[in-house]
Amino acid sequence: MTAIEALVAELGDGIVELHDISERYRTDWSGSSPTAPVALVRPRTTEQVSAALAICDRHGQTVVTQGGLTGLAGGAVPRPGDVALSLERMTGVDEIDPAAATMTVWAGTTLEAAQLAALDAGFELTYDLGARGTATVGGNVATNAGGNRVIRYGMTREHVLGLEGVLADGTVVSSLNKLLKNNAGYDLKQLFIGTEGTLGVVTRIVFRLRPAPASRTTALLACPDYDAVLSNLASFRRVPHLSAFEVMWPTYYDVIAERRGGVTPPIDIGAGRAAVVELSGDDPDGDLGLMESMIGQAIEQGTVTDAFLARSAADTEAIWAMREAGPTDGIVGLLHFDVGLPTGDIDRFVTTVEQRLAARWPDVVVYPFGHIADGNVHCNPTVGSDDPETVEQVDHVVYDTVAEFGGSVSAEHGIGTVKKPYLDRSRSATEIALMRRLKDALDPNGILNPGKVV
Amino acid sequence: MTAIEALVAELGDGIVELHDISERYRTDWSGSSPTAPVALVRPRTTEQVSAALAICDRHGQTVVTQGGLTGLAGGAVPRPGDVALSLERMTGVDEIDPAAATMTVWAGTTLEAAQLAALDAGFELTYDLGARGTATVGGNVATNAGGNRVIRYGMTREHVLGLEGVLADGTVVSSLNKLLKNNAGYDLKQLFIGTEGTLGVVTRIVFRLRPAPASRTTALLACPDYDAVLSNLASFRRVPHLSAFEVMWPTYYDVIAERRGGVTPPIDIGAGRAAVVELSGDDPDGDLGLMESMIGQAIEQGTVTDAFLARSAADTEAIWAMREAGPTDGIVGLLHFDVGLPTGDIDRFVTTVEQRLAARWPDVVVYPFGHIADGNVHCNPTVGSDDPETVEQVDHVVYDTVAEFGGSVSAEHGIGTVKKPYLDRSRSATEIALMRRLKDALDPNGILNPGKVV
Repeated sequence: MTAIEALVAELGDGIVELHDISERYRTDWSGSSPTAPVALVRPRTTEQVSAALAICDRHGQTVVTQGGLTGLAGGAVPRPGDVALSLERMTGVDEIDPAAATMTVWAGTTLEAAQLAALDAGFELTYDLGARGTATVGGNVATNAGGNRVIRYGMTREHVLGLEGVLADGTVVSSLNKLLKNNAGYDLKQLFIGTEGTLGVVTRIVFRLRPAPASRTTALLACPDYDAVLSNLASFRRVPHLSAFEVMWPTYYDVIAERRGGVTPPIDIGAGRAAVVELSGDDPDGDLGLMESMIGQAIEQGTVTDAFLARSAADTEAIWAMREAGPTDGIVGLLHFDVGLPTGDIDRFVTTVEQRLAARWPDVVVYPFGHIADGNVHCNPTVGSDDPETVEQVDHVVYDTVAEFGGSVSAEHGIGTVKKPYLDRSRSATEIALMRRLKDALDPNGILNPGKVV
Repeated sequence: MTAIEALVAELGDGIVELHDISERYRTDWSGSSPTAPVALVRPRTTEQVSAALAICDRHGQTVVTQGGLTGLAGGAVPRPGDVALSLERMTGVDEIDPAAATMTVWAGTTLEAAQLAALDAGFELTYDLGARGTATVGGNVATNAGGNRVIRYGMTREHVLGLEGVLADGTVVSSLNKLLKNNAGYDLKQLFIGTEGTLGVVTRIVFRLRPAPASRTTALLACPDYDAVLSNLASFRRVPHLSAFEVMWPTYYDVIAERRGGVTPPIDIGAGRAAVVELSGDDPDGDLGLMESMIGQAIEQGTVTDAFLARSAADTEAIWAMREAGPTDGIVGLLHFDVGLPTGDIDRFVTTVEQRLAARWPDVVVYPFGHIADGNVHCNPTVGSDDPETVEQVDHVVYDTVAEFGGSVSAEHGIGTVKKPYLDRSRSATEIALMRRLKDALDPNGILNPGKVV
């Protein structure tokens, strides 16, 4: 019996599909190398995930795990011959424990659904990303997603108290810990977090929740230059309930206005930088006052030239819509980068990349924006072409510059296949060898997401 | 050549001592099974650590790594035949990077020295423990130490951005990342954090720093009962700059007064519970006002019966001295437990343990205190005897009760040897098997801290 026959025999054709598999399962938001999986397995239970992996492991059948397919690194894209294991039927909140302030959620649940369920119970799931409506919490954990609130609450990793996962051989590791502090042996969940489905499949997650804040106070600041941005960041960082500090460069800011009919920038930033600042707290009036006074001081000091302070939910949405729009529509050959750098060096990095690309492609435009307080910039250029050779050349320029700046080729999106050739720009041969050693120990037959990360 | 001869030949007798080894290296603060190591290796460099481990690995020579020897789980206590590898000569701050807000510190540095160096540069290293003067940062990382400020800043793990460590075979893994967000491949530092020296030896650490707060505002609250404690915790938790919330039970509170000449409790808690509350911020007057108003409200609601608000550094020290004293002096047979539990169940757990112990040892006294906001209580009993059989019987009662409550046998001290027999109360056979699999993959000859954790 082949692996596929065994899967059908064990799980049935309601779970295992072989024909007319939707194109949806062929690639992720990276659009990288669309490939049809040899079979699509959509289990409803952890036991079915376990059974599927045990069969694949026995047969040496490779498996790519899929969540919301919003990844930008190709980590969920099938390679020829892969079975696709989609967690999309394993959805919903298993439990919210108000006393422990935790929620236990199935991996296929969208982030937004989990956030709303937490809110309903008076809590907040405190990580957040633009793709919340489609991205699944399982994918967030597998990629250690970052997003807009890392400055206050950390990456997805910091939100995971426990999880249930399945190893390559089908072993179910149930570590559904709800305790904030637990040093009883190795912290096994780390094997599943941020390893992009190469060491195991996450099926269920215990997230830490926090009391929902009564209000968010958001402002958009026009800063004359990057030094002014850094000065404002230093002031706002001292506010303990600062929950976001995001920056947009003028190219990005302007293209949003041009390309997105609905978005009108409320203030002009000229050749400066736009910063989105958000406080989350329990004292809306106090926070409005604090924001006004901090902006007032910044204007006096010349680090802010104009500001728009949200005074309604619509204002807040308008600000975030700009930041989250992403200049992705209809720009030919727009490339996505997700690099990590020392915060102070980001603007210089952007300029360096721009100059180096312009030396070769004079029409290059870079649309940078990002979570600069966390040292993360999405430095997205277009040189007007998306042919693979050009893309590779641009990649080289960007990642070599990252290496020069001591940065990371991926701050939050992960490595997948897209950044795999450049992993050595951020990690040493010894580190990569140790990753392989871990991979060999946990997945000796190499069935889990082969060709990704290491 | 034996392993010991090879160590002396390679490293010299200034680094490797065979005779007159001080008794200090025989046990840690647990006092567990004092054992002289067969040799004491005190390297000055990472290369020497690497050379020592490579030799030991080739010879199958077992090694116990030692830091400040303040552990309470026996993790740093030699077993017969072990070489002791002390990091105490690898001290000092390698670098403070103000722009990145990071410090790179050698593993043998005491926590206090690292904290003071950070403060000198205007930053705070935001984890803290009572043993700060002796405990080393390497030990803190190896045990994922917790302490007094977990409620705001998380465990030691959350403070580590990067590290340099040495594997059993002498491979130096240099992952001295300074970036807040870095998803470039597996997060290898997790292999060294909280694994108690069984997977590798930490030599250098990059810690995340935060701006030093301008002030700390501390209060001691008398709460009539545990429900009142929980109600106060719920209110204070909403203050984003709450940095500690610690609780002492009356037996603990009273014994401190009795046994520690210098400490006079400033308020009477009767049969209630004492809570230490601390805000760390930049607005001392505002925080004093906030604390006064919150205490005022709590008094009105009956959840606080009396309070002492620190108005000087001496006041603050007096409060913390009580909490950190620990009822350790001269109480015969006092046992230390470090259990994790759902916060809401801690008082019931304490009472249950007390009753179960009293059924057998009517004179039992339990001295509980701890970081209850994090679900961590040091539920320290004495039944008046420290003979090993009695200790084992008490351990069984406590850990079986922990298992019943769905708790963790170690919230912050680690497993070491002391809690190893009870690991199965908190972790499944599958989890323990996976820990062993990791151990075998990374330390195939089993030389690193054998007999500890798994």
